Amino acid sequence: MAINLPHLNTKTTFPIKPRTNLGPSSARYMPRAIAVAQNHSYWASIEADVHDHLNKAIQIRPPETVFEPMHYLTFAAPTTAASALCVAACELVGGDRAEALAAASAIHLMHAAAYAHEHLPLTDKSRPESKPEIHHKFDPNIELLTGDGIAPFGFELLARSMDPARTDHPDRILRVIAEISRACGSQGMINGLHKEEEILDQYSRFEFVEYVCKKKYGEVHASGAACGAILGGGDDEEIERLRRFGLYAGTVRGLMEKENIPEIQNIIRKLKDLALEELEGFHGKNTDLISSLVFEPSLCVA
Amino acid sequence: MAINLPHLNTKTTFPIKPRTNLGPSSARYMPRAIAVAQNHSYWASIEADVHDHLNKAIQIRPPETVFEPMHYLTFAAPTTAASALCVAACELVGGDRAEALAAASAIHLMHAAAYAHEHLPLTDKSRPESKPEIHHKFDPNIELLTGDGIAPFGFELLARSMDPARTDHPDRILRVIAEISRACGSQGMINGLHKEEEILDQYSRFEFVEYVCKKKYGEVHASGAACGAILGGGDDEEIERLRRFGLYAGTVRGLMEKENIPEIQNIIRKLKDLALEELEGFHGKNTDLISSLVFEPSLCVA
Repeated sequence: MAINLPHLNTKTTFPIKPRTNLGPSSARYMPRAIAVAQNHSYWASIEADVHDHLNKAIQIRPPETVFEPMHYLTFAAPTTAASALCVAACELVGGDRAEALAAASAIHLMHAAAYAHEHLPLTDKSRPESKPEIHHKFDPNIELLTGDGIAPFGFELLARSMDPARTDHPDRILRVIAEISRACGSQGMINGLHKEEEILDQYSRFEFVEYVCKKKYGEVHASGAACGAILGGGDDEEIERLRRFGLYAGTVRGLMEKENIPEIQNIIRKLKDLALEELEGFHGKNTDLISSLVFEPSLCVA
Repeated sequence: MAINLPHLNTKTTFPIKPRTNLGPSSARYMPRAIAVAQNHSYWASIEADVHDHLNKAIQIRPPETVFEPMHYLTFAAPTTAASALCVAACELVGGDRAEALAAASAIHLMHAAAYAHEHLPLTDKSRPESKPEIHHKFDPNIELLTGDGIAPFGFELLARSMDPARTDHPDRILRVIAEISRACGSQGMINGLHKEEEILDQYSRFEFVEYVCKKKYGEVHASGAACGAILGGGDDEEIERLRRFGLYAGTVRGLMEKENIPEIQNIIRKLKDLALEELEGFHGKNTDLISSLVFEPSLCVA
């Protein structure tokens, strides 16, 4: 059984520090219940900040016929950990949370737009049966159009996010725009959704499931983590480590919904190990907080 | 009858030069047939360059199930003059054509994505009757997904367009991303399409038609012209003049399809005059070339 993720066989020259090097603030030996509570509260605080940022950006204003469905569909989509991971990665490399909020919001917006379109009632009925019917508050045309408005708004938010007082890093924001557009576009999330359409009758084959989860979830989480590291001022090693962590973590989180396929459990185990390895070069409490994303599927799911 | 476009009553302090100041290369007194041929060849050369730029960017490659429909739907959409106007505006302010090709391509991609979604067969049949049926080469789900992939690709193209050898203007590209995302999003094109849904039974009322044309066409042309001026290094006055020219020109081009409504002809006449006024501060042959966009609806329509 081949795990077909990139970088898997790449020898890294990044110095892997022994675990005992983890800073004194590490929560590794903390009683489990306390650690779990800390994890939940960390991710919940990020999600609340991203929600606030989005809520301010998408206020319902005239024309209400445009902004009411935009507001509604933005928050109707379940949250994605890719968005929160962007903020956590920024903090892990020593950046300030505020620097990552526009990018985290843009990731949520791309995800919300895709979610709205994924559940549109189209005339062909060839969708995977596993997709649940969702409540439609608006006409299909309006939901289609609104998704088309939500996605570019994410990029507008990002492009305008540069603090005019800090004109030193427009290149970081451009890099983040390129990352997010790629991960949410035809080489990432859209590719995963395409594949899902293509393999309808073979959706129980684990290698297809793995491919779909990597593209649909892995790439977006990878890009979220990389963007956070870029915005937080991480170096290239840190950015690539966090990108791989995100790829593994996002794929695992997708696969966890398919645990009934026997081969999947093996893949999940291996990906979890790989994800943790990527974090070993980092110090401090946030390493434990970030790694919790791989072990607790209930985190960051609204 | 009120013409409800912004900036209409704004007194400008931009020095309006008398027409006789136009450079010696002006084609103003050229026989009409020659001028028309020159106009056509100018816009055709821009369109060919944008087409080449896009064609290189969206090569059909694996996975073909993703890139074949992406390539197909990108070129299945009729061209938009907003894209060509971006290049012409860049040249008008003295910039190099190559600097505007990524932005012009991004505008075409946003337009192509909207076009694909506008013609999707949705389950509700409430679309304006005037929209013609188009040939669908792919399943609705694939066309929906492909549109969702085309739009972010436009932003990726833009974000990656900065010449690594010229690191001096990332802020211009960020500004252009903000412009295009706004014009193609909920405050521009998507707003126009929303309004079109809303006023189905009143679509013959000229004030609604004017609003829809301003939002659906005017704003995108305005942004195209402004982006070209930004990328070509135009000053703020030039950027705003060209933005207004684009707004009037794009609205006129949309309204020309509705000339059967009597009030529309009056509006068109006034908007044409306003568009030309905005060009009076510029010199040289390109002024005549650009103004032809307002008078010849057949230009830049594939």
